[in-house]
Amino acid sequence: MDAQRRVIEDGAIVLEGSKILAVGLRSELERQFKGARKVLRANSILLPGLINTHAHIPMSLLRGIADDKRLQDWLENYIFPAEGRNVTREFCYWGTLLGCLEMMLSGTTTYTDMYYFEEEIARATVQAGMRGVLGQTVIGFPVADAKTPVEALARTEAFFKQYSAEPLITPAVAPHALYTNSKETLQACRKLANQYKRPLVIHVSETKRENDDMIAKYGKSPVQTLDDWGIFDGPTIAAHVIWVDDQDIATLARKRVGIAHCPSSNMKLASGIAPVLKQLAAGLHVGVGTDGPAGSNNDFHLIEEMDLAAKLAKVHAMNPEVLPAKTALEMATVHGAAVLGMSEQIGSLEAGKLADCVFLRSSSPNLIPSFDPYSSIVYAAKAADVTDVYIHGEQVVAAGKSLKLDTQLILKKVQDYQRQVVLSLSKK
Amino acid sequence: MDAQRRVIEDGAIVLEGSKILAVGLRSELERQFKGARKVLRANSILLPGLINTHAHIPMSLLRGIADDKRLQDWLENYIFPAEGRNVTREFCYWGTLLGCLEMMLSGTTTYTDMYYFEEEIARATVQAGMRGVLGQTVIGFPVADAKTPVEALARTEAFFKQYSAEPLITPAVAPHALYTNSKETLQACRKLANQYKRPLVIHVSETKRENDDMIAKYGKSPVQTLDDWGIFDGPTIAAHVIWVDDQDIATLARKRVGIAHCPSSNMKLASGIAPVLKQLAAGLHVGVGTDGPAGSNNDFHLIEEMDLAAKLAKVHAMNPEVLPAKTALEMATVHGAAVLGMSEQIGSLEAGKLADCVFLRSSSPNLIPSFDPYSSIVYAAKAADVTDVYIHGEQVVAAGKSLKLDTQLILKKVQDYQRQVVLSLSKK
Repeated sequence: MDAQRRVIEDGAIVLEGSKILAVGLRSELERQFKGARKVLRANSILLPGLINTHAHIPMSLLRGIADDKRLQDWLENYIFPAEGRNVTREFCYWGTLLGCLEMMLSGTTTYTDMYYFEEEIARATVQAGMRGVLGQTVIGFPVADAKTPVEALARTEAFFKQYSAEPLITPAVAPHALYTNSKETLQACRKLANQYKRPLVIHVSETKRENDDMIAKYGKSPVQTLDDWGIFDGPTIAAHVIWVDDQDIATLARKRVGIAHCPSSNMKLASGIAPVLKQLAAGLHVGVGTDGPAGSNNDFHLIEEMDLAAKLAKVHAMNPEVLPAKTALEMATVHGAAVLGMSEQIGSLEAGKLADCVFLRSSSPNLIPSFDPYSSIVYAAKAADVTDVYIHGEQVVAAGKSLKLDTQLILKKVQDYQRQVVLSLSKK
Repeated sequence: MDAQRRVIEDGAIVLEGSKILAVGLRSELERQFKGARKVLRANSILLPGLINTHAHIPMSLLRGIADDKRLQDWLENYIFPAEGRNVTREFCYWGTLLGCLEMMLSGTTTYTDMYYFEEEIARATVQAGMRGVLGQTVIGFPVADAKTPVEALARTEAFFKQYSAEPLITPAVAPHALYTNSKETLQACRKLANQYKRPLVIHVSETKRENDDMIAKYGKSPVQTLDDWGIFDGPTIAAHVIWVDDQDIATLARKRVGIAHCPSSNMKLASGIAPVLKQLAAGLHVGVGTDGPAGSNNDFHLIEEMDLAAKLAKVHAMNPEVLPAKTALEMATVHGAAVLGMSEQIGSLEAGKLADCVFLRSSSPNLIPSFDPYSSIVYAAKAADVTDVYIHGEQVVAAGKSLKLDTQLILKKVQDYQRQVVLSLSKK
């Protein structure tokens, strides 16, 4: 997944500290780097770490709490009550550890988040050894970590300062959406992001209703309204982006907005099918995202999102040639990096980039035979084929097990939270 | 997944020989069956073995040989040449062992097949300890195991006789499709099936082109044409069934035709979205199928097909309430059994049925917490969560490993076939 999209047979990678020093043929690199400590992985595919461009990681603790519901029913009768009664600093911390465990074991090395108590999420993410672009939520009604948007903005600024020097964390501001925030709040978010040179994360045109309501309210689509208000004047990660027309896509392309495509969530919530082919054709960077697991997915497995992104585009276009496997893998790697504004650092295996990489066991029954590595990775590989994961030069997964997290302790904590959530929902 | 859809906490199942003797609370069954040998599985979900209603199992050896192609290009330039130059008795035998390995490890206990040298497929299936409804292909042009349909029909009859007494195998006749067979051949297939009381397996209305061509040729849809010819006058398993109207669905329901819905394949090949909700509403039994892995999927993981069947129906209907998790699991179990005409034997955990069952590790990071077992199984479980599999009362998978198959030998054979296939395609 380098600039030339080389597939190297019997290849090798040389790491030094947090970075990639060289990528090439094993025989050549062994000559060139004679003293290096060697790790051999026969029958493996080495690929860049996968990049999840949209998640709400602590919602792992609400996994599958309410499925097969209409969005309003789901939000008002399940998610908001469950969140209101359960989301605390500790909930976010433990939910993040569970989410990081699941993501790392399935080959994701960087994820984008949007939730509450984002500094706790950052703390857990660093502890897990994962890379995160973590967006502190700003929303127009009282939530677990802030009573007002002003309070949320103050939290965000404190978070920016607290995590200014942590190499694994890119703090971000995450105004929830146009329909849940005022013009003033959205502009204050943009201003704060630009002041600290941080990205802004936002849901855009996820549902037809949102699109219709905003047109009724502002006379323009969400994209045009946000653009008029200057919200795209700086690095922006927009999630879903389903109900957009050609003009919206042109605007997003002109403003270089990164797109997080969430096929599982968009299908499961029946939000719609995003015009991903048009977005890619317009030159937009489109990554893939899992969204949260509390009814919209319900897991953090990015390999499945690649597979689904390809299949959904094909049946939608009624053309099996569109969005081939290579493009799907690009979306989860190089495109994902560009969506996050991190093209120089991550997304491919190239000298000088950060050492985020994943080994897949290519001898698994579901991966043999193999006639094309892109096809194998996108259409046949499973999370369980991930054996080793390196992030920032550090090995965090070995033989399919986390090296940094206490899995048993997480399991126990999750059981406690499960009981607590069930109890909280039984109260009217 | 019994008649009452009971979910039993701290449950147990009692097996005797190939059958289920009792299902209920562990405490009660322990009292009732004091002398029984006990196998304890804490933190597990026990469910009926999954039923794959459509596959071409030896195509495992052509996994991902050509992706992202239009159907005609795919068939004419890749599949037919690759099959013509490679498909032998041995190819079918080894391809079946690989496919059975992958299916068993991912929780499938019964599968439906349609391919060549079906007696070799049966031999390998019995060796793997799997249950199969295996359809010998009959097609209107020369193929690997028969030069003519007459020859294929003779093969089928011999296969019926050879496998008349093997409890794991239900031999079937599989006329490929309406568009690849004459009226005479199709009627001869039906007659043979009825004579031996065996099912008929056929592709029906997979592509719009097939539907349009058949209407142009016969003046009626494929379903109506097949019905006019009496092809549905006996147990029938119809795969895909995408391009059907209300009248077709009514006809299929009247004739109790079993439907194999293949969401991955239908999306990947851009065949279309099957009207599954209408089919279910008409009282049809709709199972899920993986199809073959040589470009249409590319794996045999039925948990993913359940998940996808639900998600695809939701986005297609633009309604998240349709095809809930419970229905998806029914499709892969009780509906699947009904599709195969085996409702009395398999598809649920009930006293008197055959002992086909699967344990999932419910403590996997992607399966915790759990607020609803249907949601966990359909939307969050992965093949790798399958720990133990029993088929016909025999344990065939333990701790995620096959007990009956020599995985290393299969791996070696697959490598040999991979080289052979690549070489065969390099010749013009």
